[in-house]
Amino acid sequence: MSSKITTKEQVKKLLDSYDYFLFDCDGVLWLGDHILPFVKETLDLLKSLDKRVIFVTNNSTKSRKDYRGKFEKLGIPGIQENEIFGSSYASAVYVDKILKLPKDKKVWVLGETGIERELQELGYATVGGSDPKLDETGILPADSEAVNNLDPEVGAVVAGLTLSVNYIKLSATMQYLLKDNKSIPFIATNIDSTFPMKGKLMIGAGSLIESVAYASGRQPDAVCGKPNQAMMNSIKAANPDLQAKPGRGLMVGDRLNTDMKFGRDGGLDTLLVLTGIETEESLKQLDPNEAPTYYASKIGDIYELAGPNN
Amino acid sequence: MSSKITTKEQVKKLLDSYDYFLFDCDGVLWLGDHILPFVKETLDLLKSLDKRVIFVTNNSTKSRKDYRGKFEKLGIPGIQENEIFGSSYASAVYVDKILKLPKDKKVWVLGETGIERELQELGYATVGGSDPKLDETGILPADSEAVNNLDPEVGAVVAGLTLSVNYIKLSATMQYLLKDNKSIPFIATNIDSTFPMKGKLMIGAGSLIESVAYASGRQPDAVCGKPNQAMMNSIKAANPDLQAKPGRGLMVGDRLNTDMKFGRDGGLDTLLVLTGIETEESLKQLDPNEAPTYYASKIGDIYELAGPNN
Repeated sequence: MSSKITTKEQVKKLLDSYDYFLFDCDGVLWLGDHILPFVKETLDLLKSLDKRVIFVTNNSTKSRKDYRGKFEKLGIPGIQENEIFGSSYASAVYVDKILKLPKDKKVWVLGETGIERELQELGYATVGGSDPKLDETGILPADSEAVNNLDPEVGAVVAGLTLSVNYIKLSATMQYLLKDNKSIPFIATNIDSTFPMKGKLMIGAGSLIESVAYASGRQPDAVCGKPNQAMMNSIKAANPDLQAKPGRGLMVGDRLNTDMKFGRDGGLDTLLVLTGIETEESLKQLDPNEAPTYYASKIGDIYELAGPNN
Repeated sequence: MSSKITTKEQVKKLLDSYDYFLFDCDGVLWLGDHILPFVKETLDLLKSLDKRVIFVTNNSTKSRKDYRGKFEKLGIPGIQENEIFGSSYASAVYVDKILKLPKDKKVWVLGETGIERELQELGYATVGGSDPKLDETGILPADSEAVNNLDPEVGAVVAGLTLSVNYIKLSATMQYLLKDNKSIPFIATNIDSTFPMKGKLMIGAGSLIESVAYASGRQPDAVCGKPNQAMMNSIKAANPDLQAKPGRGLMVGDRLNTDMKFGRDGGLDTLLVLTGIETEESLKQLDPNEAPTYYASKIGDIYELAGPNN
């Protein structure tokens, strides 16, 4: 059974128990462009206690640089790029370190600038993605250049979320997935079926990826976002201390099937907050093996309950 | 084993054996806007022999009226609406006759005008579909009217192919699929994963439907196109003779998993033509139980082989 964080004593124990705090972002720190209550104060408290804070997000539409900007805009300055792990970054790292794709090869992107920027930072040219030529209208999609002139140098496909999805983008992605006897590696940033936007569930990366997967008769060769442990390994590689101190890390998130599973599979304790997808009801229906270590109404409770003298 | 139609004797026997010829259209009669060789002559020959000819298509972007126009444009005049069975018509009939949706209810459409027109002919108002408001850009999709102002009178969702798919259309469809505890019926025109366009495989209805199915955690309650037998039953209901003479109907198509299965499951003999999706290779790899009765290079072979004196 998960214990609910409601007292100063619990918060004190929590703060004593962990050195690393991994945070999901949307639904935990903010909802869209609205920061949640006492988030800044909670992060400040953790930093004042010399805790290591790492942000782990499946949203591939932004790069780590973009996330720094978002933190600043929301009144949380000073976050470093190496504190942020996004599924776009994780996908780019996968292409580079696991696929070892030569740098003279290109990557076809179904997605937004977040993926493109992370790939470009690692030295890869991208095609597709946010290229405005893919938004051409008034032509038969089969006549579009993207579908007709497949780039022979494309050596990998990275697919994630794009709010400007259209028939040409899906069909061109399908051509690359079918090309060369279906041998071009197919990387998914993440497979979340839905994406929270202004309190609504909208189409998530996983639902777009499902479309091109069904069309091509392929499943992604790798899924880079939470709960996949490739992302955890990448975090641990960049933070050797975390690996050296098992049990001293806490994963904080709002989704059971991504955030909580990600932390649990990585050997971390977990804290579910109820400001995003899940409710106290969904927690009650859970198999005890899948229950988070703790839950709380919101992450700001840590600051509120800790009180002024912590 | 399927026998290949290559001689005048085989054609004569074929013409003697069947009274009803059911034809798939794209890949059999035409490729996109290009009619295939000797199609008109073959259809004329069949009509001159008093054969009944019925066209059965999974392409939901056109209504039966639209198809009449397409036949005329390609030089085949005089086709009647009751000779055409499309998946858009089959879906509208399903909503009317099987769901028995009251006529004061509306239908949310993910698709093009073919679906809208067939539903409207049966007396239903449609929302979504080709409404230009769904193509709005420059706003956050969660702020779009389609996503925010769900029509309370929508009593069914019909999803098919649309070449102008976008994030708002997918996300709004998802809202209706989630609405009222996922109780609004979810009808798929067809689930073909791909759609042939100018010699290329592009995204098919099934690949768009897969996206909203995954997003909503639902599967379609009904699939109306081939190989579903609801379409066959509808054809038989409109052609009682066909039902009365089992074994006197031949289904002609270019896809094994839709056309050939559709004919076989409906108790008809089958003829595969190689002008569309399948090849002689794919035929050889087939389980004998799934082999079509006959195959031919193209449908025009019937006319060419029959010769002038037939």
